[in-house]
Amino acid sequence: MAANVQQHIPIIKVNASSSVITADDLAIEEPLEIRLEYGAEHQRHIQNISVTMRTPGHDAELAKGFLFTEGIIKNADDIAATAHCFIACGENKENVIQVTLNPDVVPNLQNAERNFYTTSSCGVCGKGSIDAIRTVSSFAGRLEDEDTVLTDVLYQLPVILQRHQRVFADTGGLHASALFTTQGELLLLREDVGRHNALDKLIGAALGYGWLPLHQTVLLLSGRASFELVQKAAMAGINIIAAVGAPSSLAVQLAEEFSITLIGFLRDERFNIYTAAHRVLLPGNRVVDSSRITVENI
Amino acid sequence: MAANVQQHIPIIKVNASSSVITADDLAIEEPLEIRLEYGAEHQRHIQNISVTMRTPGHDAELAKGFLFTEGIIKNADDIAATAHCFIACGENKENVIQVTLNPDVVPNLQNAERNFYTTSSCGVCGKGSIDAIRTVSSFAGRLEDEDTVLTDVLYQLPVILQRHQRVFADTGGLHASALFTTQGELLLLREDVGRHNALDKLIGAALGYGWLPLHQTVLLLSGRASFELVQKAAMAGINIIAAVGAPSSLAVQLAEEFSITLIGFLRDERFNIYTAAHRVLLPGNRVVDSSRITVENI
Repeated sequence: MAANVQQHIPIIKVNASSSVITADDLAIEEPLEIRLEYGAEHQRHIQNISVTMRTPGHDAELAKGFLFTEGIIKNADDIAATAHCFIACGENKENVIQVTLNPDVVPNLQNAERNFYTTSSCGVCGKGSIDAIRTVSSFAGRLEDEDTVLTDVLYQLPVILQRHQRVFADTGGLHASALFTTQGELLLLREDVGRHNALDKLIGAALGYGWLPLHQTVLLLSGRASFELVQKAAMAGINIIAAVGAPSSLAVQLAEEFSITLIGFLRDERFNIYTAAHRVLLPGNRVVDSSRITVENI
Repeated sequence: MAANVQQHIPIIKVNASSSVITADDLAIEEPLEIRLEYGAEHQRHIQNISVTMRTPGHDAELAKGFLFTEGIIKNADDIAATAHCFIACGENKENVIQVTLNPDVVPNLQNAERNFYTTSSCGVCGKGSIDAIRTVSSFAGRLEDEDTVLTDVLYQLPVILQRHQRVFADTGGLHASALFTTQGELLLLREDVGRHNALDKLIGAALGYGWLPLHQTVLLLSGRASFELVQKAAMAGINIIAAVGAPSSLAVQLAEEFSITLIGFLRDERFNIYTAAHRVLLPGNRVVDSSRITVENI
């Protein structure tokens, strides 16, 4: 099966002289559940080992590599078969892969359990996870906000971030999340080796200050916008997210569902608008007519 | 407590005209375990909720933000106290933080369990995790290799990677792991939205081809080098890792323990050597005398 690793979508490209509706390619992000079948011949077990957000393709290699690098299997010979669940389990699940061990192989699951740690977002997610956010979040998806931001304000945000990102300047090794007012005033900045940690720190601080929901703010991400980051922002009621890097396909899908304005590649006085373009005010306070953004007219 | 977010270490800076021992700052990466204390007054429970690799500092905000963005708590008022374990539990654990909920608050742990997924590496790691790798890996830390790589070969690797990274060119959204011979021939390239997935795919493929241990190869990482990536490379017997971005403190510590050559900021015909410099051959086949690299002489 040839996997899709890119998704072609319509976006709005904005720079100082123009704003045009055009096409863009997103890196596809989808969950993969890795299941392990093992045990003696008449006592087979099936266990969910891990769910990871990955780009589809080379899933069997991913599963084998994960099991090996985590010390759960020792050799390629331990494996009898690797197949997607729609073949291995008879279930129609594209995002589940099952690794079947030979009957004599004892996987080192104790080691696995000791060495794994949990991180945020989604069981076998995508649609299911998006529904879960809707249930859990007090703020996500409310449409009564009147948040808007000017293009000239957006252009300034990475410049302000760079001026304040002290540790990054020294080490080149930290992600940042920064919260601005929609007028471009820096409210909070947090840095971390993990991008989800930087955002959790920022939202944790805002929670402590009693600032939630974070309407009338813009969240700036120093890198790429993943599903997980948009999920966390949605929980905090953030309506406008701008990333210096690229968004993933699932990040765009989630932003779309919650009517969050998602901006990517914000640098050098340019950016792309992926969703909810009505909150971005172009020079002369013009709004992009986002009803025109459909796959058909690109 | 003021947290250290940077670590000052000696490195070797190499470019076309010189190689000098100098000082560098690393972004600190350490595990944080988040524990939750909750329940009615005479029936309190303590549960480990998550372990994340983070940069120390703002740990209480990180814990609160995580619990909130994952839907485990609903409000700041749910929390009675947040404290590091050396205060909250009387244990000397800097990297454990405990969030204590008010007696009437019921955390949404069912939701948490449904929404979390496990990912790779370390329980409460650092030293303990490094020991675990030593136990589990068949290949890591063997010193009998004679792997070396020329500076001129290293300079070429990012150029070759860029030429082959097709999807990244289109989307700007993918991490890559590439495996080269020590002569600079590209053997394998895998891309993914998750950097650990790209490396698992690469090692899974190599495992399938019967190539392990991956001696006489150089692993090129398109971004930063985290603990997790060095751990996976160590499991596959890779002795030389070069990253286009910065390494974290724990990545350098792990590479040091396993005598893996770790190179960072490999771009524009320059790079830094962090560990095991003896495998890098400078022009004229000179080797850097890495015994001279100590904190004292920088």
